[in-house]
Amino acid sequence: MDSHDSRHHVLIIGCGFGGLEAARALADEDGIRITLVDRSNHHLFQPLLYQVATGGLSAPSIAAPIRHMLRRQRNATVLMAEVVGIDKAARRVSLADGQQLGYDTLVVASGATHSYFGRDADWAPHAPGLKTLDDAFKLRAKVLLAFEQAELLADAAAAAREPWLNFVVIGAGPTGVEMAGTMAEIARHTLKDEFRRIDPTRAQVLLLEGSDRVLQAFKPDLSARAAQQLTALGVQVRCGAKVVGIDAEGVDVEERGQRLRIPARTVVWAAGVAASPLGRCLDVPVDRAGRVIVEPGLSIPGHPEVYVVGDLAAAQSHERDGTTKPVPGVSPGAKQMGRLAAANIVARLHGKPPEAFRYVDYGALATIGRSAAVADLGKLQFSGLPAWLFWLFVHIYFLIGFRNRFVVMLDWASSYFSFQRHARVIAEQALPGAADQPIGVHSSTSVPSGQRT
Amino acid sequence: MDSHDSRHHVLIIGCGFGGLEAARALADEDGIRITLVDRSNHHLFQPLLYQVATGGLSAPSIAAPIRHMLRRQRNATVLMAEVVGIDKAARRVSLADGQQLGYDTLVVASGATHSYFGRDADWAPHAPGLKTLDDAFKLRAKVLLAFEQAELLADAAAAAREPWLNFVVIGAGPTGVEMAGTMAEIARHTLKDEFRRIDPTRAQVLLLEGSDRVLQAFKPDLSARAAQQLTALGVQVRCGAKVVGIDAEGVDVEERGQRLRIPARTVVWAAGVAASPLGRCLDVPVDRAGRVIVEPGLSIPGHPEVYVVGDLAAAQSHERDGTTKPVPGVSPGAKQMGRLAAANIVARLHGKPPEAFRYVDYGALATIGRSAAVADLGKLQFSGLPAWLFWLFVHIYFLIGFRNRFVVMLDWASSYFSFQRHARVIAEQALPGAADQPIGVHSSTSVPSGQRT
Repeated sequence: MDSHDSRHHVLIIGCGFGGLEAARALADEDGIRITLVDRSNHHLFQPLLYQVATGGLSAPSIAAPIRHMLRRQRNATVLMAEVVGIDKAARRVSLADGQQLGYDTLVVASGATHSYFGRDADWAPHAPGLKTLDDAFKLRAKVLLAFEQAELLADAAAAAREPWLNFVVIGAGPTGVEMAGTMAEIARHTLKDEFRRIDPTRAQVLLLEGSDRVLQAFKPDLSARAAQQLTALGVQVRCGAKVVGIDAEGVDVEERGQRLRIPARTVVWAAGVAASPLGRCLDVPVDRAGRVIVEPGLSIPGHPEVYVVGDLAAAQSHERDGTTKPVPGVSPGAKQMGRLAAANIVARLHGKPPEAFRYVDYGALATIGRSAAVADLGKLQFSGLPAWLFWLFVHIYFLIGFRNRFVVMLDWASSYFSFQRHARVIAEQALPGAADQPIGVHSSTSVPSGQRT
Repeated sequence: MDSHDSRHHVLIIGCGFGGLEAARALADEDGIRITLVDRSNHHLFQPLLYQVATGGLSAPSIAAPIRHMLRRQRNATVLMAEVVGIDKAARRVSLADGQQLGYDTLVVASGATHSYFGRDADWAPHAPGLKTLDDAFKLRAKVLLAFEQAELLADAAAAAREPWLNFVVIGAGPTGVEMAGTMAEIARHTLKDEFRRIDPTRAQVLLLEGSDRVLQAFKPDLSARAAQQLTALGVQVRCGAKVVGIDAEGVDVEERGQRLRIPARTVVWAAGVAASPLGRCLDVPVDRAGRVIVEPGLSIPGHPEVYVVGDLAAAQSHERDGTTKPVPGVSPGAKQMGRLAAANIVARLHGKPPEAFRYVDYGALATIGRSAAVADLGKLQFSGLPAWLFWLFVHIYFLIGFRNRFVVMLDWASSYFSFQRHARVIAEQALPGAADQPIGVHSSTSVPSGQRT
């Protein structure tokens, strides 16, 4: 396509933080044209995805159409398509619809996905993770439907009803901690007066962590403070709990040498992440999580025209003192890689050597729930309300587009004071039991799936 | 369930305008307990559904959780469930999950669904209608994906590309007119600068109407003015065009004795409405559209304890002069029926006779697009900007909940001045061609459906 164009063609796969930043950093290069390919039509502000999953924000607040974001960048073309193969020798990628796209330089930024430690087929259907908007919608529906089911089964035996009021989050990293804290808040406050047959405040939220503390990436005393805040919000924190089985009705755990069964209809997976399978198409060494081991300048060995950035890259930060450190899988890391890849592309076009990647660490921040968070800014550590306010400020600041920031602020302010969450819509879908029942006792008419009764 | 409760049990099926209004009107009756059953968890402000379908509003702005709306009404229990059968003799209904619910009085308010004039199986997959949020999400994705596909196929033959830029709306009632006008606006303004390979302003929006004019329910001169405004917005209005075929690639039409083929990948159905199939479970006479023919007091013949309200009822308005008039299928009609049914339930409990339904007509209002609408308030008819401003005011006024009104106003003000539509998210889903292709040329790993590249 467009083979008549003489400009250097940079093809970017994936429009997360890394890919988007690379594209933007090349905006003023007249000698370069960019094609950005993404499977979805939007750039997602993933750090707030759990808010969509828990009904606090609606999707458009954290997702902006990619082509709208880049509408003024005239050297960028956006294509919504799925890349299914990469041919490094011929310098082209193939799309799912059979088309081919050539490139002069390739930036692979296709990110990460869930990993169920080899149990994907068994566990994924029962314990959805949280990476995409689709995941968030499914999780939101699942959580809200669980309370609806419990209300419907109010007269049934406790053994049938209670698993609907047990919510298990597996993995106490930032996403797991956020999900657990927010679900506890929903049960204790949001839904408090809305049920007549069950008491939603009696719902149990369990946070299971295989290691000995929550938020491993933080210093131990911040982990301890996070655990305290979680407990105060009503979350049952269980460290040293190794998940050995997940099915439709609960979770099997090994805890202090014992095997336990936790009956639960709602299980959230926040434990494992693996690199996008596209990394393996590059045919270069990957680490255990499938991340591509990149050169200091973020290109792959032997191919200075192919870069890998973001969660897909196993990159090292090359410190001033000559040592190296691994780069954490957070959005500032991906953005910084995207920027450096862009700079190295330009340098190479001018015959200059690439610069090595150095990660600038602004600190770590994790929110837990209402007025609860932990912050580690290197020399400064704090938690509770100050950390939460800081978290709020940072996340609103980095949200893209004025409208989003404004509406998110409005949503948060209103939910903070009212304890309400406005985005609690479940799209009409098959209710449990609805799929296998024809409608109408004396009618052969079938109901379209979208019909409201 | 709850058989120990001695209060009179009113069971309401469906929480649209009719069902919700009936429940609310019974709020102060201490001798009555209410169970409201709906397949979805939200009350939908259907008049603005086309705004969700066209990316102008996000779903939570027009959909409120039913149990949140009724949280302070202590005599009301909300159940999210699907009713699949009604047993009038035993006074109970059966739910899809096998449970039974008894009642003393039943109010059936399950509304209407699409009707494809007997061609449901053939046409529905290619020409989605617009009744539920799910419909709106699907339509939104379909419209946005069509432009994405056209951009992807920019180098393909015109015959392959152009059907993606033809948008056909079938039926020029209020919904069809709104959809056509808004889609023309999206093509001409919203997406204007966002594509590099196609010119979205060259997209064609066709509005096909079988009868001789748009907006049949309005006076002929307002219809003419609506048609003018549609044309000015860029819609091709084709009256006297009878649809005889719909498939994945286009529509077959009979127009002035000729059979024509319109190639189009996006077809919206706004032509036929049929009553909910639940009406037939009542085993009483229905009209041609499947609507239940009710008594003057809105109960069904022989069963003063069973009421039918809203779009499911073929109700007559009993005028003061003794004549009767059919009631139009609009939200004020449904609300008024809900209120009268509630009053007649209370009257019956006190041994009083039912009152006959009289519809109070506040006029008709239809929006067409940016600054374009028609209004018929009986003695007063107007169109254009004044009608549009009036429409705006009425719809914001009737939206439920302060937050919704405020956010909707914000969205509308911002999209009016910027020509933008913020809710343009397509959830990650299989792209055309993506489903039947494995990922990875040398990898057997498959990509989870929700993964972003």
